[in-house]
Amino acid sequence: MTSSSNIKARKTLDKIQPYSPGKPIWEVQKELGLDRVIKLASNENPLGPSPKALVAIQNGLAELNRYPDADASALKKAIAKEFHVNPQQVIPTNGADELITLISEAFLEEGDEVIVPSPSFSEYDFGAHIMGATVVPVKFSEGFEFNVDAMIAAVTDKTKIIYICTPNNPTGTYMTKSDLDKLVKAIDDVLVVIDAAYDHFADATDYTNGIEYINAGYPVLTLETFSKIYGIAGVRVGFGIASESIIQSILKVKEPFNVNTLAQIAATAAIEDAEHVKTSQETNKAGRKQLYKAFDELGLAYIESMANFVLVQIGEDGEKLYTELMAKGVIVRHGKIWGLPDYVRVSVGTPEENQFFIDALTGLLVKQA
Amino acid sequence: MTSSSNIKARKTLDKIQPYSPGKPIWEVQKELGLDRVIKLASNENPLGPSPKALVAIQNGLAELNRYPDADASALKKAIAKEFHVNPQQVIPTNGADELITLISEAFLEEGDEVIVPSPSFSEYDFGAHIMGATVVPVKFSEGFEFNVDAMIAAVTDKTKIIYICTPNNPTGTYMTKSDLDKLVKAIDDVLVVIDAAYDHFADATDYTNGIEYINAGYPVLTLETFSKIYGIAGVRVGFGIASESIIQSILKVKEPFNVNTLAQIAATAAIEDAEHVKTSQETNKAGRKQLYKAFDELGLAYIESMANFVLVQIGEDGEKLYTELMAKGVIVRHGKIWGLPDYVRVSVGTPEENQFFIDALTGLLVKQA
Repeated sequence: MTSSSNIKARKTLDKIQPYSPGKPIWEVQKELGLDRVIKLASNENPLGPSPKALVAIQNGLAELNRYPDADASALKKAIAKEFHVNPQQVIPTNGADELITLISEAFLEEGDEVIVPSPSFSEYDFGAHIMGATVVPVKFSEGFEFNVDAMIAAVTDKTKIIYICTPNNPTGTYMTKSDLDKLVKAIDDVLVVIDAAYDHFADATDYTNGIEYINAGYPVLTLETFSKIYGIAGVRVGFGIASESIIQSILKVKEPFNVNTLAQIAATAAIEDAEHVKTSQETNKAGRKQLYKAFDELGLAYIESMANFVLVQIGEDGEKLYTELMAKGVIVRHGKIWGLPDYVRVSVGTPEENQFFIDALTGLLVKQA
Repeated sequence: MTSSSNIKARKTLDKIQPYSPGKPIWEVQKELGLDRVIKLASNENPLGPSPKALVAIQNGLAELNRYPDADASALKKAIAKEFHVNPQQVIPTNGADELITLISEAFLEEGDEVIVPSPSFSEYDFGAHIMGATVVPVKFSEGFEFNVDAMIAAVTDKTKIIYICTPNNPTGTYMTKSDLDKLVKAIDDVLVVIDAAYDHFADATDYTNGIEYINAGYPVLTLETFSKIYGIAGVRVGFGIASESIIQSILKVKEPFNVNTLAQIAATAAIEDAEHVKTSQETNKAGRKQLYKAFDELGLAYIESMANFVLVQIGEDGEKLYTELMAKGVIVRHGKIWGLPDYVRVSVGTPEENQFFIDALTGLLVKQA
């Protein structure tokens, strides 16, 4: 007889760092015995799900004993219409997280290299490590601006993928169109993945989600999500847009029923909910200003954000302040996980949630001073 | 500039055969212009979803802007209670399909071998090929019985996993407890995955889903699903039960939010819906008898099934008959995909659906004769 402890995971998986999710509201309420807890930790839509998505879900419940449409054809069509591409250029996935894993499985061999600006979203590293590839981090310049020259210089014969999260999580900074132009023209045979999860919040005129480069024939894949502006993080839908040949390669590693029926239905309705999108954009823009004003008054440095969160420097006692905010019922994200221990990342909430956070922070900083 | 067509998928993925899902009802209706179409092609629960699951989903809609619980703690607890194990021995996944991929990613290196009785569920091959492992098929004996001696003989130094789908899809046959006992005692350092997706339909006294072997310390993982008896294939929930150390290894490759919120809520309710389970079992048992009787009367050979489908030999014109059944509004699965061109696999439906299928089949066979 063998013991089950003789069954060992692949050695290369030792490199994987466990993901640290934002704490859920119920957990903090339970742990700290608080009446009111607000979560500004996971860049969710504070206005809630697209109401049209919820109606669509209600109408789809009776058929849940059936498997989902393996091709997600209605959803693909709706996405293609919105982004002015062909449905064959679209792959919907179980959140954008799954897409990152699928891209890794499709293209990465052991020993390949993946370039990732640092700090950024941790799932790029996760995907690389599953396939035994090496992550080559490239630091941001001053003010967390993308350092496109350093990124180009980091490319070797082994480079297979460059990830560009723009607007970037957790910094809120973005890659300008001219920088992306320079990058795609300087490199050969490398897939450029533009993670445009925060696309809809970027209002800079020289922002691009990369789709114009796909249309021009460059090896670019744009990744998008329904978890941010569309407000349906709970049902898990992300998607990729690229050339048909790139999408075909990724489809090879997709499980047949990766996107559940309710997610397909909800996303198809949400992408057409122009009113919810517009209100969410306006609320976010006003919320960023509300936070900037408060940080200015408190004398705190912050990074101007093109996304639905703001990275703010709260000083050496960052972890302590993070914990004290939690004790007051405000969940934010401490920057430690990105190597930024004196920062927190706060998601933009409703005006009232933002004020609750500002009041809590002000109380703590005044006490400290 | 590089063209996007220069970006090539990994060579090893050429081995992957595209999955062929059962045709959805709407597609057949649209293609053939039929009023009534019944689907007996994907082993779904003909009684529909657990009603308790649907109520639970309704109550969870408002919070869909939040990410799911990354730990799926309530669901894990409910599963652990039902199967008399510890919650740390449970991993919920985005359908059992995802679990097969995760097991592959956790344990398979290029060149490793995976033993799969043949014909069986195609996703085991898929998982192996993603990781560059080799599938070693072992044919069933006469009457599609498991050939446990041939399986033991197929084990080499490179064998990492043995898959046992029991009851087996598409044959409906199962591995007896004494055969499983012989197998686990004969091999060393190989993970035995018992795919018990059809567990609840097996009423043979010497059937086992393998959990007693997990409890005894053997390297066994039992895979289960909410897509069959619980009737919620549409939201995608499967799960694995094994020793804590095996589960820990698989958790390394799990994406944080793999199981969506509504799936977690629905599954937690469904597993406690004893009434729906009981009615589904009874309906299935009666339905199998109804089909056997009709096949006997038609002089068709079939395999007695421990699952919610029956494999029936319809003769050399199998494909033609399959197509003609579809034209009459009955979707079944043709055996060609399993190398059984003179068989179809028919899922057990409601009594009325079974009769509709029997009438259509009888009409075609009488016409043929």
